Amino acid sequence: MLYLLTYDIDTESDKGRRLQKVAKICESYGQRVQNSVFELNLDPTKMTELKIKLDEMIDPDIDSVRIYKLGKYMKYDVYVLGKKETVELSEPGEYEFFSVKTDLS
Amino acid sequence: MLYLLTYDIDTESDKGRRLQKVAKICESYGQRVQNSVFELNLDPTKMTELKIKLDEMIDPDIDSVRIYKLGKYMKYDVYVLGKKETVELSEPGEYEFFSVKTDLS
Repeated sequence: MLYLLTYDIDTESDKGRRLQKVAKICESYGQRVQNSVFELNLDPTKMTELKIKLDEMIDPDIDSVRIYKLGKYMKYDVYVLGKKETVELSEPGEYEFFSVKTDLS
Repeated sequence: MLYLLTYDIDTESDKGRRLQKVAKICESYGQRVQNSVFELNLDPTKMTELKIKLDEMIDPDIDSVRIYKLGKYMKYDVYVLGKKETVELSEPGEYEFFSVKTDLS
């Protein structure tokens, strides 16, 4: 199953240490495509595992994690304006189940 | 059609002015749910209009906008950890087509 994970992690409270840890967890489960956006291709067990790790890491009062279920089909269109990946693709190829479209249609 | 829009807008180059303008554009087309994440419910004409405005506003070399097509059905599950909305819902209710789930299943 394909998912999109986005987060807002407060960096005031602990000078960004929690942000780094959350980012590291998310990168171990999927592909980072923007600073706080990850494309994931996980089975239910792995997704539950990820949720538990994030649940233990974030501060629920000031942090926010959203996980959108995108669907099962393996190819998914994402329309991109500007730079394709803000961050270096950690494992180019393996997660390339999102086909990038850049035309305006 | 439901969409998810996420962006990374570089703030070094013009002290965040472009970021504010991009955020304002996106807020006029949908619901901001995290600092750089918006849930949109738009017909094709409005989506094209939004893309053109963003295309004119961003710096394609340093900014990144990604738009994910989520689907047509009106109710969509988004799993949320921590704070539901990082930012004040601009128009609570009107865009509430995403039903928030907080259990770990």
